[in-house]
Amino acid sequence: MIYCDYAATSPMSNLALDVYQEVAKGYFGNASSLHDIGGKAKDILENSRTMIAKLLNTEARQIVFTSGGTESNLLAIDTLLRTSHLKKKKHIITTEVEHSSLYYYMKELANQENVEVTFLSVDHNGQIRLTDLEKAIQPNTCLVSIQHVNGETGVIQPIKEIGERLQKQGIPFHSDMIQSFGKIDIKHLIPFVDCITISSHKIFGPKGVGALYFSNRLSLRSHPVSTNHEHGLRPGTVNVPGIAGFAAAASETINNLVQNQDHIQYIRELFIQKLKIEGIPLQPIVTVNQCPSIVGCISDFVQGDYVMLEYNRHSIAISTGSACAIGATEVPKSIQPFISDYDEGKRFVRFSFSHHTTEKDIHEIIKASNRIFNRIKEERQGYDKEING
Amino acid sequence: MIYCDYAATSPMSNLALDVYQEVAKGYFGNASSLHDIGGKAKDILENSRTMIAKLLNTEARQIVFTSGGTESNLLAIDTLLRTSHLKKKKHIITTEVEHSSLYYYMKELANQENVEVTFLSVDHNGQIRLTDLEKAIQPNTCLVSIQHVNGETGVIQPIKEIGERLQKQGIPFHSDMIQSFGKIDIKHLIPFVDCITISSHKIFGPKGVGALYFSNRLSLRSHPVSTNHEHGLRPGTVNVPGIAGFAAAASETINNLVQNQDHIQYIRELFIQKLKIEGIPLQPIVTVNQCPSIVGCISDFVQGDYVMLEYNRHSIAISTGSACAIGATEVPKSIQPFISDYDEGKRFVRFSFSHHTTEKDIHEIIKASNRIFNRIKEERQGYDKEING
Ligand SMILES: Cc1ncc(COP(=O)(O)O)c(C=O)c1O
Ligand SMILES: Cc1ncc(COP(=O)(O)O)c(C=O)c1O
Repeated sequence: MIYCDYAATSPMSNLALDVYQEVAKGYFGNASSLHDIGGKAKDILENSRTMIAKLLNTEARQIVFTSGGTESNLLAIDTLLRTSHLKKKKHIITTEVEHSSLYYYMKELANQENVEVTFLSVDHNGQIRLTDLEKAIQPNTCLVSIQHVNGETGVIQPIKEIGERLQKQGIPFHSDMIQSFGKIDIKHLIPFVDCITISSHKIFGPKGVGALYFSNRLSLRSHPVSTNHEHGLRPGTVNVPGIAGFAAAASETINNLVQNQDHIQYIRELFIQKLKIEGIPLQPIVTVNQCPSIVGCISDFVQGDYVMLEYNRHSIAISTGSACAIGATEVPKSIQPFISDYDEGKRFVRFSFSHHTTEKDIHEIIKASNRIFNRIKEERQGYDKEING
Repeated sequence: MIYCDYAATSPMSNLALDVYQEVAKGYFGNASSLHDIGGKAKDILENSRTMIAKLLNTEARQIVFTSGGTESNLLAIDTLLRTSHLKKKKHIITTEVEHSSLYYYMKELANQENVEVTFLSVDHNGQIRLTDLEKAIQPNTCLVSIQHVNGETGVIQPIKEIGERLQKQGIPFHSDMIQSFGKIDIKHLIPFVDCITISSHKIFGPKGVGALYFSNRLSLRSHPVSTNHEHGLRPGTVNVPGIAGFAAAASETINNLVQNQDHIQYIRELFIQKLKIEGIPLQPIVTVNQCPSIVGCISDFVQGDYVMLEYNRHSIAISTGSACAIGATEVPKSIQPFISDYDEGKRFVRFSFSHHTTEKDIHEIIKASNRIFNRIKEERQGYDKEING
């Protein structure tokens, strides 16, 4: 099977698996226990925290570990809302293109009496307009949450420009960087955000591990479940082997970032070029500012789920969008700028690559694409002939 | 090091570690992805769900996987509250001896305008009084949450008797069974509860994995983050390798339950007997109905944290109570029935055993205990002599 669904999840690297094993065997204590077995686990935990902090150019005490991306997003929002001193109605600004884990939570919050949420739409490039953001800000805006890279289209939001504006007004800024961490450099963006979400299983680390970064500018109020874990912000026995595996995978990925980026950029261009040269009826979504690992495509005349299953029959794993939204009947808001109607939206499929994707893989994918779409064309022509006599 | 803190956490069994590895390598897909790599992960997930369900004598669709015990407790409470049709004030009954993850969340809920919480105290045996429970029930009682086994004292609550009373009145009953699952038989209690919490790392499975059982009697309302994961009750990419490791560890543990129980009962009795025979100034908390793996003790004249550190110096890992509450200055409510004042409460330590604890370990512990307390006695006597001339 050729795996082209790295935006959904990735296999653990050998290093991450080795680290996981070693820690699970040799450092199994509860990191909160005060005996030496707990102390050793605590050392591994703090070492992993320092590793992640270094990758973000921050301090260890600014990192909080969680059980994954979704929990990180929810914990970020809850923690930042709890920290706001506003007594009256709280106003939040987010976008229509957030990952479902955040989007639906915002929808839920919007139903609450004392919360108001503004959902920004995106322009023809898939980016929010800074003027929209500025207009949306109210005196009671206490949180802005805008993703870095979109999981369906790869579109990159202007985080620096957003952060500069929000900092001037002292409004906390959270960004879901799950699709960018390990894929593009996010270190230089840290000064412009107050909180970011990252996840382990998207970058060759174990599943069930994520993290939050919180800037020093915030003085956070602790979790309602009074806890001595994770600076009082996240209760529950800490998954030290998973966290150590995450730190190992993150370091490995980011140490090879430039090299991997070059490779993925090459793979992306090869794929897009080949689609065109071979006349394959898949139109890649290409716009001004994108993460190269994600290539969303609109097929000319068949539904995305059918296309996905055909590739699957040809041993190629692709997706019809975010795995968490599969089964949803709505067309993701993130692809709306790139389509002209609902039908086109239902013809969306996503290829997502990694440094493991080879040139040979692309050639195989193109070969399979030819077979798949030729058969579909033949079937359509045969059918048309039949009914037209 | 002799590890006697199994109630805090346990090392992964070799089987659990092997299964984790195999699944992380060979079945890494996102269980929600519709291609074959996702499908294979989904198969492992559903197989693990069936394994856990069988151990509880229930159906796979009644099991929801989470990131651990704490999350399970919070998700149980939230889900059951969301499911209640009460529009006006909701009344919850719980106990003063719940694990901090649940207790503090209940305290938080009690601060909310539309929730009222009754905290039941315990009798001289550490158990709640059924008459107290009955008296506490109100027409708007929509949830009762009472743990099975207490993590500090091992005291077992009368779950069957509680459940029988609540079922007559149609009140949903949640029980935190984290300290009993894999240690005493809980299968026979399932008909009497509506929801239970279990956790993987307490029974030789991976950290960062837990589960909830929900009875068929409930028709649950889904999570605010609309999700296709875990029957719509828990969002976020599912940690399939961790869950498979949990299922393996749980099956292994429960298949050996009777044998392990016999062993642990023997170890417990040996330990308690030896403490007495050797005149070691540690008074074990022994009462009518206890889980044998936990032996809470009150030391005669030194603080628990000092005792714990002394054992640590002698390469024996024990605890001063629940790892999540370490650093708390309060005396746990669960030990109050067994002490006469605050000072005694501060002299609490906990030994917790498993099937890995050997007779030789107990002899070593007793030897170390003699050394530790003899030195303490000598120091005290020397000091007394000095100041009394
Ligand atoms: C942008 C984004 N946010 C959040 C998530 C959720 O992360 P997880 O599935 O690890 O909980 C994902 C992954 O699907 C994502 O792509
Ligand atoms: C009775 C009980 N409930 C809940 C928990 C919390 O579980 P976890 O630490 O796995 O989140 C524990 C473990 O410390 C416990 O003993």
